[in-house]
Amino acid sequence: MEALETTVSQLPAQVKGSSFFNLTTVIALCVFFALLCACIIIGHLLHGNRWANESITALLLGLGSGGVVLLVSKGESSKLLNFSENLFFLYLLPPIIFNAGFQVKKKQFFKNISMILLFGVFGTVISFCIISLGVFLVFNRIGVTSLTVQDYLAVGAIFSATDSVCTLQVLNQDETPFLYSIVFGEGVVNDATSIVLYNAVQSIDLKNISGLTALKLLGTFLYLFFTSTALGIVAGLLSAFIIKTLYFGRHSTDREVALMMLMAYLSYMLAELMDLSGILTVFFSGIVMSHYTWHNVTESSRITTKHAFATISFISETFIFLYVGMDALDIDKWKSSGASAGTSIAVSSTLFALVLVGRAAFVFPISSIRNCFKKRDGTKIEFRQQFIIWWAGVMRGAVTIALSYSEFASSSDTSSQDSLMITSTIIVVLFSTVVFGSITKPLIEALLLRHSRPMISDASDLPSLEDLRFLFIENGDQSEQGSSQRKRSLRLLMTNPGISVHYLWRKFDDRFMRPVFGGRGFVPFVPGSPTGEAEESQENS
Amino acid sequence: MEALETTVSQLPAQVKGSSFFNLTTVIALCVFFALLCACIIIGHLLHGNRWANESITALLLGLGSGGVVLLVSKGESSKLLNFSENLFFLYLLPPIIFNAGFQVKKKQFFKNISMILLFGVFGTVISFCIISLGVFLVFNRIGVTSLTVQDYLAVGAIFSATDSVCTLQVLNQDETPFLYSIVFGEGVVNDATSIVLYNAVQSIDLKNISGLTALKLLGTFLYLFFTSTALGIVAGLLSAFIIKTLYFGRHSTDREVALMMLMAYLSYMLAELMDLSGILTVFFSGIVMSHYTWHNVTESSRITTKHAFATISFISETFIFLYVGMDALDIDKWKSSGASAGTSIAVSSTLFALVLVGRAAFVFPISSIRNCFKKRDGTKIEFRQQFIIWWAGVMRGAVTIALSYSEFASSSDTSSQDSLMITSTIIVVLFSTVVFGSITKPLIEALLLRHSRPMISDASDLPSLEDLRFLFIENGDQSEQGSSQRKRSLRLLMTNPGISVHYLWRKFDDRFMRPVFGGRGFVPFVPGSPTGEAEESQENS
Repeated sequence: MEALETTVSQLPAQVKGSSFFNLTTVIALCVFFALLCACIIIGHLLHGNRWANESITALLLGLGSGGVVLLVSKGESSKLLNFSENLFFLYLLPPIIFNAGFQVKKKQFFKNISMILLFGVFGTVISFCIISLGVFLVFNRIGVTSLTVQDYLAVGAIFSATDSVCTLQVLNQDETPFLYSIVFGEGVVNDATSIVLYNAVQSIDLKNISGLTALKLLGTFLYLFFTSTALGIVAGLLSAFIIKTLYFGRHSTDREVALMMLMAYLSYMLAELMDLSGILTVFFSGIVMSHYTWHNVTESSRITTKHAFATISFISETFIFLYVGMDALDIDKWKSSGASAGTSIAVSSTLFALVLVGRAAFVFPISSIRNCFKKRDGTKIEFRQQFIIWWAGVMRGAVTIALSYSEFASSSDTSSQDSLMITSTIIVVLFSTVVFGSITKPLIEALLLRHSRPMISDASDLPSLEDLRFLFIENGDQSEQGSSQRKRSLRLLMTNPGISVHYLWRKFDDRFMRPVFGGRGFVPFVPGSPTGEAEESQENS
Repeated sequence: MEALETTVSQLPAQVKGSSFFNLTTVIALCVFFALLCACIIIGHLLHGNRWANESITALLLGLGSGGVVLLVSKGESSKLLNFSENLFFLYLLPPIIFNAGFQVKKKQFFKNISMILLFGVFGTVISFCIISLGVFLVFNRIGVTSLTVQDYLAVGAIFSATDSVCTLQVLNQDETPFLYSIVFGEGVVNDATSIVLYNAVQSIDLKNISGLTALKLLGTFLYLFFTSTALGIVAGLLSAFIIKTLYFGRHSTDREVALMMLMAYLSYMLAELMDLSGILTVFFSGIVMSHYTWHNVTESSRITTKHAFATISFISETFIFLYVGMDALDIDKWKSSGASAGTSIAVSSTLFALVLVGRAAFVFPISSIRNCFKKRDGTKIEFRQQFIIWWAGVMRGAVTIALSYSEFASSSDTSSQDSLMITSTIIVVLFSTVVFGSITKPLIEALLLRHSRPMISDASDLPSLEDLRFLFIENGDQSEQGSSQRKRSLRLLMTNPGISVHYLWRKFDDRFMRPVFGGRGFVPFVPGSPTGEAEESQENS
């Protein structure tokens, strides 16, 4: 919102209502909030519809109202609807990602952590290389000549950033938990990778590229990944500790909820202050808060946080799509790009084709390699699933737009080809969100849900986990027959490393973490809470 | 927050972190959010303390950290901490007032509506006249000569604006419901009156004052009051109707909560757009939403809205006090006022004395007049209660500061005496909030709560309401003995007009409003909700 005001504050001071603030700001806020209400109502009415969702509704409503504003003001109002990177990165993105971490199915996420890291890190690098190379090879032929090598690399980084927000809306965590955790988890890690790549491209010295540069990049990425994660975990644990220690026995819902909100946001800001990936930080702080802090607060605080975070995230998402839709019709950019419709379409379709190819180039190979290592048939990723992973990650969103602005609009000498890059980015984002976003739901239904054979899912390997836990407990109780049992559990540990890591973590958690930071079963009162019980019963089934 | 950014955006573009936004913004946000967390924790630790509360903690923490920032930056950083009227009026105030309307005890509020209106309208006008006159008479003698007649009148309007935010914190709705409803209700109505007065002073033609001017002002006030209220009621009813009609049977907590939030905020913005009192609008939209909309949503939505609105309001309040505290040490203002400590103290104490006198001049007379009309001993306002009403409304807050900035800082030629007025306003606000705020709680304890005799309260006249309702119901059932009953109920209506109005409203509500807009008992599922049940039992007792 401050974007609107910053722009508006440059208007003459005479345009003032009697109520101490700018009339234009108030009008813009009114329009935005009325449109948000309309999005929610229309989105609800379209609930049964397979093709539409809130993102697409918001995008189209934004486009429509942008057009109306343009008509009413006769092409003058584009300044009012400037896309602001600050607004996006400071206020809209953090609640979305925090909520995603807060509501994510932790077990599913950590079970697939190796796949998520492979997709998120190596996949993004592969995609970056292919897009950069493709742009370098194709753009000269279709008449875009003014870009430097640095710009080509930046385009690669910009279009490697997937849109985790839209993924959240088209994939359903309950219906397709495996795909959701893979695609969404990849999106979060992908963010860190994209930022590292983008910053690296900005600072890289193109004249002195050697093997050392790649090593340096890897080092930077590892530093970024681990410190960001650690900061998020520390923030989450701190909030759990404070609430457990201070509020013990005399809870106040408002203070608890406020403290959780503020500490999550503070962790994001601190990460940005330290040039880390705030998104990773706030994601992990959300995970830790839902694991510890959430169990230390009162029943009403639990319900409130669960729904309030989801609501704020929902409003932010809708706001972003509305914003992108309205911004797309910014007439100045289209004018200053000065490109013919042909060139625009050529550039946009080249970029989109490269996005498709770049994503295919890592989803299918990495999945196949993983399948080679899995013996059991049920744990393999089928081709249909690979196809959906590829498809659902093609959407580009606000991150891409924000990065594109940062690269092509912030420089003082914005050339016509820079504007062309921005308008092409907008076309790619709109096309991928509207077309791919609306087809994804029916596609998943057609490919997966109507299919009767059980897929790779959490149901297939839970029994062995239960088996394992049973063994370990037995082991502790009756030590006389322990040696054969220990052998068996050791064998299980060798064959199912992921599951045993999870088991060991549970043991560590129960013995050391929960007594200090609280968590399920470690606070005096444990009235049944909707999600807690559901998760519990799921884990014990 | 956009205030920080607007200021920061004027800094050279080189000061940029790698993460696409200004380092200074991020630092400011970090400091603010860390301080907010500290306020909540310290406020909780001081919970048992009678003298301190969150407002005072925040104010002192803000002062302290403002001092630290000033020391660290060697007196350079004052620009970072500019008080922004936009931030205050657009983002911080609406949630506070909306929440107050949402959580207010409606019965208590409407029972005392005549007193609230008397205090809020006539009281504010009396206070405005006394302060303007006093300033006019005293200021010339203590060396402040450059103010115009318009400025004197503006000062009267500025210092007649009480601080409803601080009142919410020092008075307890459960312990002293009568006082709370009077003082807080007055604060809300007072806001509308102050804005009318302030705007009238801005636009008044001092050369042509006649009896017509006063009449015009009255007309403006009545228009403002009724249209603002109507807009709030319409917004509330609309939200109730939409949720009842659209979401019937298939509720979604996130969408319901989002819709309530957005529609409340939209009503505030629309009121500001139409130059009405947004505060009155959002207050009444809160009342209507808690009466209708709140009963149409799911149980989780009820808990979520109740606590989420309270939390957001709590964060905003703390933020305001922190902000005022930090802003108080803005070194530029103190320098440019150029006044000696003596003049500063003289101006501030004159203003504060006038505030005290101006408030006394209407609280005691109006209360006495009201007492003359009340026959029964239990319904009279005792002197001790009058004293607390006077005392609790003396605090001036962020509204006063915002109006003072608007009057004395926005003009292009800020003279040293304009700066003096601003610094004096800050002194008055700090002094009244810290000293009066901290003494109020112990004072109420000493004067009222330890006293055993029952005071004027809702308990004293509820039996007669119950009696009346019983009569009306009897009346409807058995029409043969109706005439004598009707006479008796008519007599009751004459002696207790307030109660019968409430009864008639209940009847109208049950027959016409609730079937359309929902509400308690008019939605298919009515699981017990904490406040709803408490209110119900209270009303039937």
